[in-house]
Amino acid sequence: MASVTTRTVLITGANRGLGLEMVKQMVEGPSPLPYLFACCREPDGPRGKELQALAKSHPDAITVIQLDVADLCSIKKCAERVGSLVGPGGLNLLINNAAVLFHGTFQSTSPEDMLTTFNTNVIGPMSLTKELLPHLRAAALASRTPGMSCSKAVVVNLSSMAGSMTGTPESYSRFPVMSYRISKAALNMLTICSALEFQKDNILSVLLHPGWVRTDMGGKEADIDKLESVGGLLSVIDSLTEKHNGAILDYNGVSLPW
Amino acid sequence: MASVTTRTVLITGANRGLGLEMVKQMVEGPSPLPYLFACCREPDGPRGKELQALAKSHPDAITVIQLDVADLCSIKKCAERVGSLVGPGGLNLLINNAAVLFHGTFQSTSPEDMLTTFNTNVIGPMSLTKELLPHLRAAALASRTPGMSCSKAVVVNLSSMAGSMTGTPESYSRFPVMSYRISKAALNMLTICSALEFQKDNILSVLLHPGWVRTDMGGKEADIDKLESVGGLLSVIDSLTEKHNGAILDYNGVSLPW
Repeated sequence: MASVTTRTVLITGANRGLGLEMVKQMVEGPSPLPYLFACCREPDGPRGKELQALAKSHPDAITVIQLDVADLCSIKKCAERVGSLVGPGGLNLLINNAAVLFHGTFQSTSPEDMLTTFNTNVIGPMSLTKELLPHLRAAALASRTPGMSCSKAVVVNLSSMAGSMTGTPESYSRFPVMSYRISKAALNMLTICSALEFQKDNILSVLLHPGWVRTDMGGKEADIDKLESVGGLLSVIDSLTEKHNGAILDYNGVSLPW
Repeated sequence: MASVTTRTVLITGANRGLGLEMVKQMVEGPSPLPYLFACCREPDGPRGKELQALAKSHPDAITVIQLDVADLCSIKKCAERVGSLVGPGGLNLLINNAAVLFHGTFQSTSPEDMLTTFNTNVIGPMSLTKELLPHLRAAALASRTPGMSCSKAVVVNLSSMAGSMTGTPESYSRFPVMSYRISKAALNMLTICSALEFQKDNILSVLLHPGWVRTDMGGKEADIDKLESVGGLLSVIDSLTEKHNGAILDYNGVSLPW
């Protein structure tokens, strides 16, 4: 992983599934380790235990921070804390991984599920990126490497093939998760706007599709395990350059259709 | 226009811009006229005057109905009223035209603007379509013409090239309307899901891009006038068949990239 080139990383939804696996693989990678802000909604609850144990065994590499991406106050608090810890070197890598998924077709999806999903999966990444912008900008300025890469500043938004207009006809009956699909299509557009707006600051924005992974969210029937998905995602993140700004790539680095 | 084949039509946002022009061109087309439910937020306010005058001069063709697509109660009331008026023939054509647009970049768009835009431009069409489903199904069943068309049942969602992932890099700096772009990308996915789910009921779902039109929303610098846009849109609607289910077409019937 990007341990050599990326100094500071923030991951949301870091207590389970892909988020936790990313933290694990990053702190178990070659040294020097990146410094990780591992964020989750309830770090002190039962679902935060595994992350807390990992943080305890890597006290110099992991800081666990409470963050509910559906709550702007929580986002602001988190960003303040990160700002006080990163200093002038800023934040190199923001991974917007936290998301919710409700099952439901057009007919069975409620307006409430639509709003909750949009708020967490789209407005959450938007607000967190905005609040962390000064630290992303600082990181891009602090690095002397040319071009755009995760040694400068990168915003990774975890998307999904479920959000692909082209891919939906083939998969809709198997995955009737309309509000999730809509939120990921919306996140794709958010990321394109982010890419266009922040390229002048040398902040790269990219969408990654982790594959269909055997997690709580992906279920037991999925194609690949967390190890393979996260191994791939971290390699892709490490290899990002300015040509990927605004792109959507899968965990093998393959470009996907909108 | 579809006056021969379409018997009943509901249009949202019918008091101004493209919505009002659609109503005008439909009641001024060849007879027999379709029966129009012209919906808007404040039919009795100053912004409803032009629509009310039009309805007065075509009392057998237009019923004006109060509808705020951001309010589920208002949607339910409107659907009940429509149900009581259409009878067993159902509703042939639903045109989800009402939308809001806020100016704002990634940095300047507030969470509130994001939520308001998503609620009006995406959840509104979803909820109205759901509430009108029984009447759309009835219309599809009542017609004896083969295939899918607006003589059976069609849901038209007014989208925009601003919601195109492929088109955004070229136009973002000229139209920094991030929340609108996101809502239209989301509406595109909603419509794809609708198309897949309701094809078994012979209800066709399609996205139409009106062009960049000189209206309150489009501004004075836009490419075409309302006459040209709406003339094109109504011809496209009249020519829809099952091959267009889930597609996005412009006002000339040209398929657009996602």
